[in-house]
Amino acid sequence: MNAADLLAGACRVEVLAAQQGLRGPRPDWLAEERPVALVANGVSQAVMLATPAQLEDFARGFAFTEGWLERPADLRSVEAVAVGDGLELRIEVSAACEWRLKERRRLMAGRTGCGLCGAESLAQVRLPLPPLAAQPLSAGALERALAQLRESQPLQHLTGATHAAGWASRAGELLAVREDVGRHNALDKLLGHLLWQRDFDPRAGFVCVTSRASFELVQKTARAGIATLAAVSAPTQLAVQTADAAGLLLIGFARGADWVAYTHTDRMLA
Amino acid sequence: MNAADLLAGACRVEVLAAQQGLRGPRPDWLAEERPVALVANGVSQAVMLATPAQLEDFARGFAFTEGWLERPADLRSVEAVAVGDGLELRIEVSAACEWRLKERRRLMAGRTGCGLCGAESLAQVRLPLPPLAAQPLSAGALERALAQLRESQPLQHLTGATHAAGWASRAGELLAVREDVGRHNALDKLLGHLLWQRDFDPRAGFVCVTSRASFELVQKTARAGIATLAAVSAPTQLAVQTADAAGLLLIGFARGADWVAYTHTDRMLA
Repeated sequence: MNAADLLAGACRVEVLAAQQGLRGPRPDWLAEERPVALVANGVSQAVMLATPAQLEDFARGFAFTEGWLERPADLRSVEAVAVGDGLELRIEVSAACEWRLKERRRLMAGRTGCGLCGAESLAQVRLPLPPLAAQPLSAGALERALAQLRESQPLQHLTGATHAAGWASRAGELLAVREDVGRHNALDKLLGHLLWQRDFDPRAGFVCVTSRASFELVQKTARAGIATLAAVSAPTQLAVQTADAAGLLLIGFARGADWVAYTHTDRMLA
Repeated sequence: MNAADLLAGACRVEVLAAQQGLRGPRPDWLAEERPVALVANGVSQAVMLATPAQLEDFARGFAFTEGWLERPADLRSVEAVAVGDGLELRIEVSAACEWRLKERRRLMAGRTGCGLCGAESLAQVRLPLPPLAAQPLSAGALERALAQLRESQPLQHLTGATHAAGWASRAGELLAVREDVGRHNALDKLLGHLLWQRDFDPRAGFVCVTSRASFELVQKTARAGIATLAAVSAPTQLAVQTADAAGLLLIGFARGADWVAYTHTDRMLA
């Protein structure tokens, strides 16, 4: 993250603090949070609250992991535009993707149930996932990656209000990190960065996140073709169930040399 | 939380764990996470991932804090119905509220920008908030409430995957707690419980949450007429800005006797 991004993601305030029995005013840093609308081919599709930094990565990652795109090439362009207090991320997608988005809106607007629940519409929550190649993970690599992730969060260090998602090689070298006030956004930013790199190989490493592991984090990771997700805190039941079915090794409570593997545990090397 | 609720919110699994140099299988508890659709007068309005416990509180709280209702009496009935893998929360609202929801859907479906950004639609993110009566808060009451909140999270204790929102008296007595895999859901469950109690007085206490403080948590608290919100972790810039404008005392990093007050700091008593 360069200085301009940091400036975009944090701002300074005066607070009243009590610490170790002492009380008084002091300056503090806050993480920025802004409404961000994702607009595809002129039509608004979703609005998220996000940290206004690396927003092009966010648009790419979100569009991919939410199933708007089949492949990165389906995205023609991305533009971030300030609109009032908020931001619009205007993307142009291929004609086939635009048709799918229209179909999705039509289903969601219907009276025949919700966008997510019920036999038909659960198919909309659970996106189709690519087959994942079983990858072993060494406990030592996990520990090394997490140690680097802790040291690679300038926004969290300043504000205490953000989550991070990192991409590490199978040897445990941390290669990329993204931060955001939302844990899903941090992962979308990371995946938007990775998947648009020409030589990115999803089998070459694993994702680690500083948060708990929800269903959505598992699905987004699997959708990017990545077979391993390690979270610093607990997974949910739906995250475990989804990881199991998708062929993804899901690790929780990854702290120092400790970890808990929830699915495909035979892939954990010593 | 009674035994049936706990059973509904958690489930048992086998995991592989490494802890303090020892590695092996052991049983573990996971927090349940389910897609939950909110259906008002037959039309699906939103889908959330939530812990399937105290869902009627959730439906009431969500409908109120998202501005679907003007007052609790606008909600005629709530019913939770299993639909496939997910759940529908079917609510019946008054004719005036139904009209407003239709209007909201019409605006969101239009091509004239998103549901949140832009001059017109930012008015949809920022809901009208009632005037809040300035309430002082004693640092001792805050510390007492937080200590009780830590001890009042059976689901978090089992699973490590949930957040809690609590309501405490101005003397620091914790009176109600709700848990959920989502921090916004935990607050909606709490407010749905409180606002439907005949004798609830929003000026009689404050809300404390185990998470960070986002814009949405501030807005939901203020919408319930509550003037004080204390979070265990950091607030975002938009949360602080919203609390300031709404007349809400926002506290972050509330841990033991330590805290940071971000807005209306003159209300903090010794």
